[in-house]
Amino acid sequence: MINISFPDGAVRQYEPGISALDIAKSISEGLARKVLVASVNNKVVDVTTTITDDATIKFHTWDDAEGKNTFWHSTAHLMAEAIESIFPGVKFWVGPALDKGFYYDMDLGDRKISEDDLLAIEKKMNELAKKNNLYIRIEKPKDEAIAYFTDKGDEYKLDLLNNLKDGEITFYQQGEFTDLCRGPHIPHTGLIKAIKLTSIAGAYWKGDEKNKMLTRLYGVSFPNQKELDEYMHMLEEARKRDHRKLGKELSIFTMDDDVGQGLPLWLPNGTIIIEELEKLAKETEEAAGYKRVVTPHIAKESMYLTSGHLPYYADSMFPPMELDGTKYYLKAMNCPHHHKIFGAEPKSYKDLPYRIAEYGTCYRYEQSGELFGLMRVRCLHMNDAHIYCNKEQFALEFKAVNEMYIKYFKIFGIDKYVMRLSLHDPAKLGQKYVNEPALWKDTEDMVRQVLIESNIPFVEVQDEAAFYGPKIDVQIWSAIGREFTLATNQVDFNSGRKFKLEYTTHTNDTDIPLIIHRAPLGTHERFIGFLLEHYAGKFPVWIAPLQVKILPISDKFMDYANDVYAQLRKAGVRVEIDDRSEKIGKKIRDTELLKVPYMLVLGEKEMNEGRLAVRRQGKGDTGTVTIAEFITQIREEILERKSAE
Amino acid sequence: MINISFPDGAVRQYEPGISALDIAKSISEGLARKVLVASVNNKVVDVTTTITDDATIKFHTWDDAEGKNTFWHSTAHLMAEAIESIFPGVKFWVGPALDKGFYYDMDLGDRKISEDDLLAIEKKMNELAKKNNLYIRIEKPKDEAIAYFTDKGDEYKLDLLNNLKDGEITFYQQGEFTDLCRGPHIPHTGLIKAIKLTSIAGAYWKGDEKNKMLTRLYGVSFPNQKELDEYMHMLEEARKRDHRKLGKELSIFTMDDDVGQGLPLWLPNGTIIIEELEKLAKETEEAAGYKRVVTPHIAKESMYLTSGHLPYYADSMFPPMELDGTKYYLKAMNCPHHHKIFGAEPKSYKDLPYRIAEYGTCYRYEQSGELFGLMRVRCLHMNDAHIYCNKEQFALEFKAVNEMYIKYFKIFGIDKYVMRLSLHDPAKLGQKYVNEPALWKDTEDMVRQVLIESNIPFVEVQDEAAFYGPKIDVQIWSAIGREFTLATNQVDFNSGRKFKLEYTTHTNDTDIPLIIHRAPLGTHERFIGFLLEHYAGKFPVWIAPLQVKILPISDKFMDYANDVYAQLRKAGVRVEIDDRSEKIGKKIRDTELLKVPYMLVLGEKEMNEGRLAVRRQGKGDTGTVTIAEFITQIREEILERKSAE
Repeated sequence: MINISFPDGAVRQYEPGISALDIAKSISEGLARKVLVASVNNKVVDVTTTITDDATIKFHTWDDAEGKNTFWHSTAHLMAEAIESIFPGVKFWVGPALDKGFYYDMDLGDRKISEDDLLAIEKKMNELAKKNNLYIRIEKPKDEAIAYFTDKGDEYKLDLLNNLKDGEITFYQQGEFTDLCRGPHIPHTGLIKAIKLTSIAGAYWKGDEKNKMLTRLYGVSFPNQKELDEYMHMLEEARKRDHRKLGKELSIFTMDDDVGQGLPLWLPNGTIIIEELEKLAKETEEAAGYKRVVTPHIAKESMYLTSGHLPYYADSMFPPMELDGTKYYLKAMNCPHHHKIFGAEPKSYKDLPYRIAEYGTCYRYEQSGELFGLMRVRCLHMNDAHIYCNKEQFALEFKAVNEMYIKYFKIFGIDKYVMRLSLHDPAKLGQKYVNEPALWKDTEDMVRQVLIESNIPFVEVQDEAAFYGPKIDVQIWSAIGREFTLATNQVDFNSGRKFKLEYTTHTNDTDIPLIIHRAPLGTHERFIGFLLEHYAGKFPVWIAPLQVKILPISDKFMDYANDVYAQLRKAGVRVEIDDRSEKIGKKIRDTELLKVPYMLVLGEKEMNEGRLAVRRQGKGDTGTVTIAEFITQIREEILERKSAE
Repeated sequence: MINISFPDGAVRQYEPGISALDIAKSISEGLARKVLVASVNNKVVDVTTTITDDATIKFHTWDDAEGKNTFWHSTAHLMAEAIESIFPGVKFWVGPALDKGFYYDMDLGDRKISEDDLLAIEKKMNELAKKNNLYIRIEKPKDEAIAYFTDKGDEYKLDLLNNLKDGEITFYQQGEFTDLCRGPHIPHTGLIKAIKLTSIAGAYWKGDEKNKMLTRLYGVSFPNQKELDEYMHMLEEARKRDHRKLGKELSIFTMDDDVGQGLPLWLPNGTIIIEELEKLAKETEEAAGYKRVVTPHIAKESMYLTSGHLPYYADSMFPPMELDGTKYYLKAMNCPHHHKIFGAEPKSYKDLPYRIAEYGTCYRYEQSGELFGLMRVRCLHMNDAHIYCNKEQFALEFKAVNEMYIKYFKIFGIDKYVMRLSLHDPAKLGQKYVNEPALWKDTEDMVRQVLIESNIPFVEVQDEAAFYGPKIDVQIWSAIGREFTLATNQVDFNSGRKFKLEYTTHTNDTDIPLIIHRAPLGTHERFIGFLLEHYAGKFPVWIAPLQVKILPISDKFMDYANDVYAQLRKAGVRVEIDDRSEKIGKKIRDTELLKVPYMLVLGEKEMNEGRLAVRRQGKGDTGTVTIAEFITQIREEILERKSAE
């Protein structure tokens, strides 16, 4: 008998040679139906794989990343089968899974695929899927594989074979289709219940523009129609909520060819959002004991040599400016400047934790093809801060940072979020990771413990920590279910030493501080891009560029409108009057388009009674109130930063 | 008879050949005693100059720039006379007047001048001054002048003669001293009543380090001892109030070799001042109808070619960064970015005046020798804004800008200020100045009229306008009487065209907006440098980094101290507790050094009565009050931004 260990720590005995699928069945038929692939001794394999020795096992379903990944890769094979049946002679290059879906690159010779073809391919894929064809793994010697593709005249697969060794070459076959593939795959095609081919693109072979242009077909698939429908609806919503489209319609930001790509200019409306975010951050950080600093946007090469950003990070930085024989760089991060501020004056244990914050603007080089609206830019206004503390203070400080995230999530109505905790690999200490085994263990344990205590959903990832300490990536989901990477927190036990930072301890010794890097609101660019989609441009009152629009029904009510305007301005409300000679219906429609939270319609009755007819964005007419009542209500909404209901 | 016109428009008749001094005498003996030099037909000349034709005349005294300038230049000659009598054989190079005082460069051969020598020279100068020697102008043919200095073996003056033409060579003689000099000079040495030689330095001949090092002697002089005493007192105060010294003592800013010269890092205390200034500016600008924008710190070369900053201004900009084959520059001014924002969306007359403000950070290259603390830096946080308006709106807009200056001057207790209005020269239209004669006349007239109406002290300067319009430099004086250039306002009728900015008029035509550049608070760097000197670090409460320090007399009162602390924090006051186990006298002395506005001393009596013993910076003990009374008082002081009394 062999011992099989499960993730929950349980160990069961089985006959040697049992398959992963049979182990799943031994637990429950339900699990066996859902399992797509398994991890045996931390390696993801087909569920048909047999196990002959003691091993650990974990089953993957549609609910986890490995399951989805395999599902989509198997769908790519299914698409290839359909295409080969429609376009005989097609040659395939590679067909990987993506974050969402899959693609396959192919050489169609002189033929072209049209949108109409996509529907035909989808139809064929659905037919083939229903056959419940098994994905069968076939190991082949290299010479046999070469003979097979030489015979087929497939120079692409022959190229792939070049880089493979004998003994590691496998084919996968389902139905009539066979492909060189390292796998793994899902059990059979019948699991693929809903398919959508989403787009056609061109892609140079191996990404090299000197090579032939191949055809790339994108698609996505699901284990049921409902999920596909939801996904297509989300895509449609995302299109409507596209932050570039809304950013233009609502005059949030603009780009200019003479300024440069990836360098947004923030228009007055966008600047109001920026200032509200900064006000929120400054209030929150002040209450949490942060001090603020201001640092230049440039520094000499020597600083980045000390920090280690040069030469390793040079490709992500703007090129240097040479001045008086010295190279100056635009800062790509605020950390080194902040370390210099910590080090500028002597520090003692009484100064710790020393927390300094700055909305620092950094510049990073992204290739022009990578730039995308506010999401991938070259200029980043970061909600940055660094906390310098000792080991005893660390857990409490880290917890406070997490609580700040949760506070922000509540304010912005972000219900779904996950922290991704990246840990080190002890085998790589002194190479990929700073050689401080005790510090790694302590801080990783503390970080994990804090995440558990704070009830924060998190996943652990091995061997993806930063060089100088564990790292937490924060993933959030917008109202329509799209995922965004918001920010990164890092623990750093290396920079203190590099910058020779120290403090005097209780016992009059000196010690090096631990450093926490944190930026809960990420960058203005990405966060405002996220908010545009999240709110579909319908911002909560506190952050809306224009909070109230006054709509007098005719010029007769302009005096009353001006009076209401003056009172609202005095109360600190961002307000405008629509003084055009338009019908009230048109005024309302035009204001709706600008997604202003409140419209106040003023006519004879309102004027005579000193009241306001209130229209709330998304709710329509909500009745009339006095000016004083309205001011009390909107001020409360603003001061408490209430979400739109 | 000839007609002599005076600045007030009066015209009087005189005999041809009358001297300027005699004309002064004809007006009043008092004037004749005070006059140092005269402008005849706008050329500054000796008062002994005779006038043979109709002319304009203006007399200069110690009270104007031309008078002071000549006074100091004549003192330089007096110093040379004294030095020649003490160090025979000394050779002189040039001896100009400075903003404050004068210097003379000289070749002393192998001899050195010591601090002791300075006193001896001063003594000799005073003796010579009392002789009332006349400054006598002597015109000489070039060959005679060459013969004179060849005979004397003076290669320096021979070098100067090289560049002079026959007929324009003049000598000036007073007492035993004769020098090649174009003049003019004051009437006689007896006017120089108070002299102070201030320092000795080395200076390469003609500023070229390959040449011989000459000795440079600096001095200053006055028409009476009282003014010298005041000046020396001011210098002493300025030394005590040196912003670099105070900036370090009060932890305002720091510089770091790895960041770079001229690039201040703002420590938490300095950042509080920055944020208070920005809050003031934002409130003021919001009330004045400005919108805010945020723009990147870089832009492509093409934008600066459009604006005309390249190639003309290239020496003052940081060198370019070359990225993807395009040159990017750090911005040295915010204007072009703001113009791009104006142009980003269509504008109509309804959008004008369009006022956009940004605390934009600019980078300018200053030679490392020119850098000085916060006063000459390479990184400038500018209180910038641009107003786009039409011609009818211009005067009102310009007036509002001036009113903003006056408002700020009141807040900061700046009693002495002058606006220096630089005008164009009609002869240089189309060359040095945009060829828009009507616009020049209109805007200059409007600017002058607004300055007069607003009762703002101003002087007019011919031929120093910007290329694109009249310019106003704002000079302010600190509490100790030192002059600072705070900011520049400019009228601009050229950039609108260059950037193709336009708006739709009432009549549905398009027109180009006029632009006002303005920055009333200048840059953070210079303004905070000024404030450090102006307040000697003793900031008014509203802007003081730390507003209140609580000093419990012993640990027994820590609970009470914490209670007071919590109440003050809640009221938005920046407060700390001195919880050290030190005697109260030491706590008070240490807090005095940090120039904290309020100290609250807490002991038995205060605790039992729920009161605070208040010490006000500069006033000492001011009695006891309840916590509530103190909060009311300090909040009023903060909200009203009161000056320290």
